Amino acid sequence: MADLEQQPTPGPLDADGFRRAGHALVDWIADYRATIAARPVAQLPEPGAVRAMLPPRAPERGEPIDAILADLDRVVMPGIVHWQHPGWFAYFPANSSFESILGELASAGLGVQGMLWSTSPACTEVETHVLDWLVHALGLPERFLSTSAGGGVLQDTASSAALVALVAARERATGFASDARGLAAAGAPLVAYTSDQAHSSIEKAVRLAGLGKEHLRLVEVDATGALRADALRAAVERDLAAGLRPAFVSATIGTTGVNAIDPVDEIAAICREFGLWLHVDAAMSGTAALCEELRFVNAGAEHADSWCFNPHKWMPVNFDCDVLWVADRAALVRALSVLPEYLRNAATESGRVIDYRDWQVPLGRRFRALKLWFTLRSFGLEGLRALVRSHVAMAHGLAERVRACPRLSLVVEPRLNLVALAHVDGDEATQRLIDAVNADGRFFVSHCRFHGRLVLRVSVGALATRDADVRAVGDAIVAEAMR
Amino acid sequence: MADLEQQPTPGPLDADGFRRAGHALVDWIADYRATIAARPVAQLPEPGAVRAMLPPRAPERGEPIDAILADLDRVVMPGIVHWQHPGWFAYFPANSSFESILGELASAGLGVQGMLWSTSPACTEVETHVLDWLVHALGLPERFLSTSAGGGVLQDTASSAALVALVAARERATGFASDARGLAAAGAPLVAYTSDQAHSSIEKAVRLAGLGKEHLRLVEVDATGALRADALRAAVERDLAAGLRPAFVSATIGTTGVNAIDPVDEIAAICREFGLWLHVDAAMSGTAALCEELRFVNAGAEHADSWCFNPHKWMPVNFDCDVLWVADRAALVRALSVLPEYLRNAATESGRVIDYRDWQVPLGRRFRALKLWFTLRSFGLEGLRALVRSHVAMAHGLAERVRACPRLSLVVEPRLNLVALAHVDGDEATQRLIDAVNADGRFFVSHCRFHGRLVLRVSVGALATRDADVRAVGDAIVAEAMR
Repeated sequence: MADLEQQPTPGPLDADGFRRAGHALVDWIADYRATIAARPVAQLPEPGAVRAMLPPRAPERGEPIDAILADLDRVVMPGIVHWQHPGWFAYFPANSSFESILGELASAGLGVQGMLWSTSPACTEVETHVLDWLVHALGLPERFLSTSAGGGVLQDTASSAALVALVAARERATGFASDARGLAAAGAPLVAYTSDQAHSSIEKAVRLAGLGKEHLRLVEVDATGALRADALRAAVERDLAAGLRPAFVSATIGTTGVNAIDPVDEIAAICREFGLWLHVDAAMSGTAALCEELRFVNAGAEHADSWCFNPHKWMPVNFDCDVLWVADRAALVRALSVLPEYLRNAATESGRVIDYRDWQVPLGRRFRALKLWFTLRSFGLEGLRALVRSHVAMAHGLAERVRACPRLSLVVEPRLNLVALAHVDGDEATQRLIDAVNADGRFFVSHCRFHGRLVLRVSVGALATRDADVRAVGDAIVAEAMR
Repeated sequence: MADLEQQPTPGPLDADGFRRAGHALVDWIADYRATIAARPVAQLPEPGAVRAMLPPRAPERGEPIDAILADLDRVVMPGIVHWQHPGWFAYFPANSSFESILGELASAGLGVQGMLWSTSPACTEVETHVLDWLVHALGLPERFLSTSAGGGVLQDTASSAALVALVAARERATGFASDARGLAAAGAPLVAYTSDQAHSSIEKAVRLAGLGKEHLRLVEVDATGALRADALRAAVERDLAAGLRPAFVSATIGTTGVNAIDPVDEIAAICREFGLWLHVDAAMSGTAALCEELRFVNAGAEHADSWCFNPHKWMPVNFDCDVLWVADRAALVRALSVLPEYLRNAATESGRVIDYRDWQVPLGRRFRALKLWFTLRSFGLEGLRALVRSHVAMAHGLAERVRACPRLSLVVEPRLNLVALAHVDGDEATQRLIDAVNADGRFFVSHCRFHGRLVLRVSVGALATRDADVRAVGDAIVAEAMR
């Protein structure tokens, strides 16, 4: 087997080649970020245009890494929408700080898989520890600490967090009968509740978990977009009277559309009264709680069974990084745990460690905590607070200009970093406004509908966004509105 | 708002700092890989020892990046189990080629989120294209091509792939009644089938999707560990007679325990007869199909409704990277699609593009295809085949030595890269063998139970593993067995 010894180590790219290519790629990223403002934010190619640049079959022979990296410019860049652009005001910020890029790189370089504590203790312990840090940093309740009966875990997204929270709720509601016998043999249908402004991931979770779309109540909202607690109570009572089983409520802190904040305190009272699991989706806006003066986003958190927010949104950690906290980890773990013989190990059996595979859908997991740890440390809490405050101030500055413009109206009063506005002439005029702003190339905004009305959303939160960028998009909006 | 302009750009680490730290981290990774063989593969600290090195609260002030990176050695490394070690023979290989590290770095650097085609067309198109490449490279059926009615999508893990396949199967079985009304109101319980050697993720998917553990049949296996088709047929007929609804079968190509291969052809015939969804989990062993002479792993693939394998196992792409192909993408997409107003866009409505959010649990997704694309191109198919062949040859070499040792027995005949062996004196002796090999520090093996017997597994597939390493673990095993 002498020829086996000639297999290049490790793979076609050797360590020196990796150093060289790695340095070049780091520089390419720095150059990309430095020149990003000069690119149109979101210029779409024709469908299929990217594929058309690729050969029909994978190469038989290895290609030089330089040719591969060069294709980032030739093939990839024409099909990139620049989420890191200072003019990114669409959807939500998906920041990728330099620190978090380094964390992702370190994770890939270590190449460990943290399904069990014992398959890389640092992967589990850094995660647990940093999520405890965040409980303190955000002023969240102590019952989310790993030193209590609860604890935190990183998920890829708030969608997955909602799914596992719902499954835990489902099992608590049926006393684990649905886990054993399935929903078809575990009694009357379970019902989930959220507002009609909630994120689509709640509907997706309800369908994935087998509850059925018809058993999700999209409760009406008030003028600000917040769930109406009276309507929730009425819906729960109606379902109980109909012989259904209310089980789960997802409240939203910062809805996707207009960033509305549900009254978690009032919702929690209903949940306690009827024994419902209370999940809170604070995906974008949860980060605001870094700042004392914005801690209204935490109201009612002490009553939540589960709470999630996305550092990959407004805390500048690169996608994917969602934090899910639960108040009672036993319920979650029991619903998700499978222990085959091949994963048995002394540490697990000692009961002294956390095995995060039992807190998520996948078995495997990478060392995702590194990027969060790096970002928290490099920015420091002060640095992160300054960032949040700057975005809120910029959004409020834009709102002031909207208020001052007779052709525009604020759809809701912004409390954080999202400005939701419309043209006073109605949807067609608002659509023209959206199209004109996006045609400019310097900005990208997205839309929603709110109480039937088309809305132009300006979500301020990209790491690169400066006050000048927000003023510029304000100029463009006002100029177009006044035409 | 002059002070806002002073906010450092972007974040505390500026572009020059990122260049410097990035170069240093790339070199650190190269150094780690170069010295990895000198470290004990899996030396576990005391539970809590990693956390104990961290301060109780996140820092208020930002820390210098050098101090943060230095903690990779001080804090992280003592809690790392070295999955990239040449003596890694446990569980499965979770390779992280230099090429795939670069792909992950590029993905983090671009920082795009590919939930929709329109949110970065390259993210979707490179993925679709490379997964079509793999259909050809692996000799899989054309119905998995995106140009047919099917197509491929990247998932984080085979667990998530199994879950979404099961949900699509569930909805096909109930004609989407469970999607609408939920399982509690959609008729008799659905039943899923897999072998008693299948991966735990199948049970997890069955429970998450609301079918209930009691409606998963763990069908018995033959002496090689392969699912017995006659037992499957009997189970299906029994369930039908009991008024239940058989819906889903997951066949395994390369079981976790002893790498057994289910008879997919025979299973497919039963699936066709009874209208069951056939999913195939080829997580580790699917990669073998790169080599013509190992294409027995594809037998029956042309009948599968869904098929998954993990490039993050034996094809050296860093975790996480699972490929799921479906024969009929419409079934999957219908089961997973939610289209809120705020995600509507012209490209989606044209019907000319793929929106991968409808193919997975999460909404968001990063540009995961880059690392697969980079690895395929840098190795070339020839390079990947050479790697697979070297691992198979090394495993067969080890098996030969086990056969020759009177104190050892092969539990099954290895067909690929996994050697499953036991001490002839029984479980206690096998446990001593496992403990002794792992105590050495140069190797890490794991275990399973097969037909009641404790088994020492030697999974050969780490990128760094050379024939000398396999000979060394063979020496250690034989020496201990003969003591």
